[in-house]
Amino acid sequence: MSASAFIRQINEQLDAHYDEMVKLRRHFHQHPELSFQEKKTAAFIASYYEALGIPIRTNVGGGGVLAHIEGGSSGPVIALRADFDALPIHDEKDVPYRSTVPGVMHACGHDGHTATLLVLAKILNEHADRLKGKIVLIHQHAEEYSPGGARPMIEDGCLDGVDVIFGTHLWATEPTGTVQYRTGPIMAAADRFTITIKGKGGHGAQPHKTKDAVLIGSQIVASLQQIVSRRLDPTQPAVVSIGSFVAENSFNVIADKAVLIGTARSFNDEIRTLIENEIEQIAKGICGMHGADCDYSFERGYPPVCNHPEETAFLAKIAKQTEGVENVEESGMQMGGEDFAYYLERVKGTFFFTGARPENPDAVFPHHHPKFDLDEKALLIAAKVLANAAVSYQEKEQSLRETPAM
Amino acid sequence: MSASAFIRQINEQLDAHYDEMVKLRRHFHQHPELSFQEKKTAAFIASYYEALGIPIRTNVGGGGVLAHIEGGSSGPVIALRADFDALPIHDEKDVPYRSTVPGVMHACGHDGHTATLLVLAKILNEHADRLKGKIVLIHQHAEEYSPGGARPMIEDGCLDGVDVIFGTHLWATEPTGTVQYRTGPIMAAADRFTITIKGKGGHGAQPHKTKDAVLIGSQIVASLQQIVSRRLDPTQPAVVSIGSFVAENSFNVIADKAVLIGTARSFNDEIRTLIENEIEQIAKGICGMHGADCDYSFERGYPPVCNHPEETAFLAKIAKQTEGVENVEESGMQMGGEDFAYYLERVKGTFFFTGARPENPDAVFPHHHPKFDLDEKALLIAAKVLANAAVSYQEKEQSLRETPAM
Amino acid sequence: MSASAFIRQINEQLDAHYDEMVKLRRHFHQHPELSFQEKKTAAFIASYYEALGIPIRTNVGGGGVLAHIEGGSSGPVIALRADFDALPIHDEKDVPYRSTVPGVMHACGHDGHTATLLVLAKILNEHADRLKGKIVLIHQHAEEYSPGGARPMIEDGCLDGVDVIFGTHLWATEPTGTVQYRTGPIMAAADRFTITIKGKGGHGAQPHKTKDAVLIGSQIVASLQQIVSRRLDPTQPAVVSIGSFVAENSFNVIADKAVLIGTARSFNDEIRTLIENEIEQIAKGICGMHGADCDYSFERGYPPVCNHPEETAFLAKIAKQTEGVENVEESGMQMGGEDFAYYLERVKGTFFFTGARPENPDAVFPHHHPKFDLDEKALLIAAKVLANAAVSYQEKEQSLRETPAM
Amino acid sequence: MSASAFIRQINEQLDAHYDEMVKLRRHFHQHPELSFQEKKTAAFIASYYEALGIPIRTNVGGGGVLAHIEGGSSGPVIALRADFDALPIHDEKDVPYRSTVPGVMHACGHDGHTATLLVLAKILNEHADRLKGKIVLIHQHAEEYSPGGARPMIEDGCLDGVDVIFGTHLWATEPTGTVQYRTGPIMAAADRFTITIKGKGGHGAQPHKTKDAVLIGSQIVASLQQIVSRRLDPTQPAVVSIGSFVAENSFNVIADKAVLIGTARSFNDEIRTLIENEIEQIAKGICGMHGADCDYSFERGYPPVCNHPEETAFLAKIAKQTEGVENVEESGMQMGGEDFAYYLERVKGTFFFTGARPENPDAVFPHHHPKFDLDEKALLIAAKVLANAAVSYQEKEQSLRETPAM
Repeated sequence: MSASAFIRQINEQLDAHYDEMVKLRRHFHQHPELSFQEKKTAAFIASYYEALGIPIRTNVGGGGVLAHIEGGSSGPVIALRADFDALPIHDEKDVPYRSTVPGVMHACGHDGHTATLLVLAKILNEHADRLKGKIVLIHQHAEEYSPGGARPMIEDGCLDGVDVIFGTHLWATEPTGTVQYRTGPIMAAADRFTITIKGKGGHGAQPHKTKDAVLIGSQIVASLQQIVSRRLDPTQPAVVSIGSFVAENSFNVIADKAVLIGTARSFNDEIRTLIENEIEQIAKGICGMHGADCDYSFERGYPPVCNHPEETAFLAKIAKQTEGVENVEESGMQMGGEDFAYYLERVKGTFFFTGARPENPDAVFPHHHPKFDLDEKALLIAAKVLANAAVSYQEKEQSLRETPAM
Repeated sequence: MSASAFIRQINEQLDAHYDEMVKLRRHFHQHPELSFQEKKTAAFIASYYEALGIPIRTNVGGGGVLAHIEGGSSGPVIALRADFDALPIHDEKDVPYRSTVPGVMHACGHDGHTATLLVLAKILNEHADRLKGKIVLIHQHAEEYSPGGARPMIEDGCLDGVDVIFGTHLWATEPTGTVQYRTGPIMAAADRFTITIKGKGGHGAQPHKTKDAVLIGSQIVASLQQIVSRRLDPTQPAVVSIGSFVAENSFNVIADKAVLIGTARSFNDEIRTLIENEIEQIAKGICGMHGADCDYSFERGYPPVCNHPEETAFLAKIAKQTEGVENVEESGMQMGGEDFAYYLERVKGTFFFTGARPENPDAVFPHHHPKFDLDEKALLIAAKVLANAAVSYQEKEQSLRETPAM
Repeated sequence: MSASAFIRQINEQLDAHYDEMVKLRRHFHQHPELSFQEKKTAAFIASYYEALGIPIRTNVGGGGVLAHIEGGSSGPVIALRADFDALPIHDEKDVPYRSTVPGVMHACGHDGHTATLLVLAKILNEHADRLKGKIVLIHQHAEEYSPGGARPMIEDGCLDGVDVIFGTHLWATEPTGTVQYRTGPIMAAADRFTITIKGKGGHGAQPHKTKDAVLIGSQIVASLQQIVSRRLDPTQPAVVSIGSFVAENSFNVIADKAVLIGTARSFNDEIRTLIENEIEQIAKGICGMHGADCDYSFERGYPPVCNHPEETAFLAKIAKQTEGVENVEESGMQMGGEDFAYYLERVKGTFFFTGARPENPDAVFPHHHPKFDLDEKALLIAAKVLANAAVSYQEKEQSLRETPAM
Repeated sequence: MSASAFIRQINEQLDAHYDEMVKLRRHFHQHPELSFQEKKTAAFIASYYEALGIPIRTNVGGGGVLAHIEGGSSGPVIALRADFDALPIHDEKDVPYRSTVPGVMHACGHDGHTATLLVLAKILNEHADRLKGKIVLIHQHAEEYSPGGARPMIEDGCLDGVDVIFGTHLWATEPTGTVQYRTGPIMAAADRFTITIKGKGGHGAQPHKTKDAVLIGSQIVASLQQIVSRRLDPTQPAVVSIGSFVAENSFNVIADKAVLIGTARSFNDEIRTLIENEIEQIAKGICGMHGADCDYSFERGYPPVCNHPEETAFLAKIAKQTEGVENVEESGMQMGGEDFAYYLERVKGTFFFTGARPENPDAVFPHHHPKFDLDEKALLIAAKVLANAAVSYQEKEQSLRETPAM
């Protein structure tokens, strides 16, 4: 059977299993679990593979599940990754498959990622003999919460022997049928920082005897704006945001303490370090101006997701040939973070977006919104792109190896 | 008996009852009660008077106690006021009479005020026949917490028939032996305001889709400084302080809401209104600049305490003649508030400070401090000044009336 | 002749010379000269005294004129001071006596001060024999421009032998007939400071390669507000104002330099030093936050004018007895500066305000306004208060000396 | 002669005329003229063409020079553009060809652009018969100063009949041998705005009677930072800079007026309009907060330079084949502006950077720096890339036309 016939066959079988994909996705949607607490989800995934006789390893890197399909002949080892944790958000959708867990919700599409990969694995497994290399299925826990599940899974061996990795994110704000790729940085480094201002409290009527932590914190927040507006190269996307400002007191006191917590986003190490240092310089400069002290910590979260050029070009080409894909385009940089970044620091590969916008415009909400939902038809498209990429990559490598040296 | 002999006799008796005064003060100190919850303290005061056979009225204006001593002859009705509530502060002093109630403490000297007035009433009562007019003893609850006890007590009749009122505050940062008076404003209007910023929340990585309530709040806090520095006459003392800034969120969101709560202090109505309006103009101006909304409320607390000129001059003269008083001086304006203000809006009178600084410099702490304490000898001085003022005022009025018309 | 008869006589003669006073004032008004350039004015004053045969000294302390009248008997030496410089303001009034010098104007009333003192000297001189002590007439140049004329005149001996000094300022915003006195500080210390920000210039499109002096300067201006609002005791009047912010550049560059120039006002040395230090801490703190440098200089101008208590009480009493004075009241503190301060650092005395508000409300403008004018009747009142003060002071001292020791 | 042989020949002739190119460039460097005042430079260019017998039109669009070379056969009309104005900067280099005009300097490389184009025209003219289409040589005045020379030259017909345009900028901070291209926006829209704050002046000691224009301006400058940091999509490069802040006054006044002038940079119309509106909202919001007024004007300068995709890909391919070019890479977006933008709004084409970094690292300075200089070898490279592009474009079109229709 030719490569193209093989791919056609897989696509047909995926079509035939679309209902299962939707059923699985809705199961996960109804039973979401928070990052690092996804016991039942992991067990569900494990039992799915066990039922198929696919060998697995559980508790990988803590809570991940690793499966693999040995190909009939030798060839490149291809990893496909799906994450499976949910978010601390209360589901406000009015749908039959709404979350059954109060305050927890699949508001980012990881349910879809997992359903896609499970069904894809099932189909590929039926054709193991025809595969020219191994397929590794990485079911990753805890993507939503730094330090994330990717790093410990890698440390626990999930990338051992892997030649290339592919991953996708269902993207509910892009139309179904669109695939977005990008060489180089596609998602940002996502860091967290805390500034604790230590002023001197006192009576609200006697400011001159205090060091007003609320005023100090306010001046810091205002001055932080200049990092992006003045200190960074305007062509380098970056963000510095304070999410939390807390100095809770009676109305007639002056605060001795204020705590600011925020996030910084950037796409390379130089900018990342610059931001880290500039925040410190501003916080300490303003505290010093008031004779106050501050503690400052900057915790690096996920690094930027940096796609490899050849694998990205390959994926874009494959996507164009995939059934159901109507539009393949370059993605902008996304300021969000993803611990897929860690995989790409170790092996070649690419991470892409699969449009999954609900047809009903009133059902379109941004990721992490309490009413977030997906167009489930996108699961099928994602499965096909990943399947085609995996099979074609193995075929391509095979043909390169078989070409007689001249 | 001449007026001066009468006063001398009262002073001697006060000296003889100093131990009781201290004992009473320490009793109150050990059993503090929060504003509007001072049941036991009120009951204690009531039973003290009942034991002396002095007629009282309880639950005046809610929780106050009103006693009076009818003089032997007719003459001016003089009110003396002491407040008796405590503060939500945990007593950190290491003394035998430390507060027995966790988190509640007489950290402002109201225990001393009450002990002073009780003993003074006892002595004056023994000489009721010699008094040329009535003495009204106002034991006021809830001075520390706006709207305070003074206003409801007045509405409940505590000033009915009163000609003049005197009150003092023991002042732990001025040396014992000092009495401070001031004509006109001596303590500030103490108001409270709340600014609730209604921005638009979102992901910390996408500030352009939000209206950042933390930044808006910070710019408001910074701009509020200009009210005192630019908008008000520099010779008019005033304060605008934000005590509380709360926008509590995850690090990677942008706040949709921030709440600022603060206090404003001033000494006259024009400035008070100006501050109220300027805060609004700043809050709304900055919110408008961001396309955000805000709610603003300004709640007037106690008005300024404004002493009457003649009564203040009279009190200063009396203080100079009082045993134990070494230094009578003009007070500066105090930015703190006092609901004694309401009495002075109705009747003539004056409010003064009686120095009560502990001899041991290590024991000197500002009012409302967890280690606050008093020099108890100041209670005796306060009692004598009030006694002399009351008696002399009646004698003076008497002699004016007796002067034959020419 | 009794003291009161003597005073009555002087007052009558002043009344009789009112026209001359007005004429003199208008002469000065038409021929104003800037501080340190008042050659013609000084010469005019000198020739006036020379014509009367009153001994003078010219060029005192540079440009001042000193005259004296020796009394018939010995007694206290009393100095009376009038300043005579004008301002760099263009006279916009439409009156016959409008300034004839473009861009220079008596917009502060020094023309009136000088006219008052000249006529007063003329009358007193006619009664020299009756005077019980010497009268020193200090015609001071350069009050408007620090370092002023008072200090060099003092160094040149103008206060030698003087026992007490009186001075007044005609005050165009208070009604004619009012005299305002104040014990202690009545006018502020008036200091000047300069902050030169040394950033790093560059192209307006590349802020990240610069240290933006305009932004740095702006943040300093905003933060300076907190000195008055937070660092100073609210009951201590003070001002910090930036008058000049200059960073002049093309629109598409980023400024390497910005110069801020401002004034600070205060009423005592502690606050003055605190302001000086706080400005530096803010300027350096914000520059440091940007990695920029700054130069800072704080030049002390005139100290606060601090009136002596006894002389002030004396003056207030005299004013109440003076013909034409309808209202004697305590002055507020004035944030303006005056080098009369230096005289009061050396000898006892007092400085007071004489109301001089034009009757026509449309003609009332603040001092230093291009349409400023005076009610000339106030010159007569000022002359009478000063005459009565001088004569009464000598009479009083005389009588004290004549009282036989017991 | 084949196309490649033709191109080889032209390149060889360019090599042979390198000395003339340098000589011409140094001539222009020594005789710089400011934008809109380049009479002599235009005359020099005109006479150069006249000497060669190339037909020209002068005073095109005011001050431009337009020349053309008619090809031997018909084909596409290709425009090549060089600008020739200098800057108001004083040349601080120590070289023999230093500017002879004080305060005026070719600090941006336009001298090199012009020398390159003149010599290139000379060589192409010798081969006019061999050219398959027309070459239009646009010598543009006034690129440095908005509204620039491109627009009036276009209005005056310089693009009439033109099919495609190429232009380059010598780039002194990239190594010689590098060519940088970019599809879509490569240089920013460069706009100018002015904010005139109309406060209320007064005495520096009486801020409460004023509306302090310096403080208002400072708060505006600080708040403008939030446009880039909060209001714009972080992935969209943009800049808002204030270059000039002027409120010049005496130290002891409060400014009634302050003028801020700045520049805004962006790469598309939506962002451009957003910035325009946000500046207004901030300026008016803060003025409103103070009860002050402001005038605001936003003048659009050059639009973004947007390269056409096919022509850019063509140019990149040509550059790779060009002698002396060692590195062809994608350019980042440049925040600077260029009125080449107007040509690309009318006809297809591309604008690229030709590296021209001096070999001596101490001689490397940014554009518009008083010590700016070029590596002159880059002129030769620029000439070759432009020559190859022009000839190859004509050859390519020719071959397309000659292909028989099927």
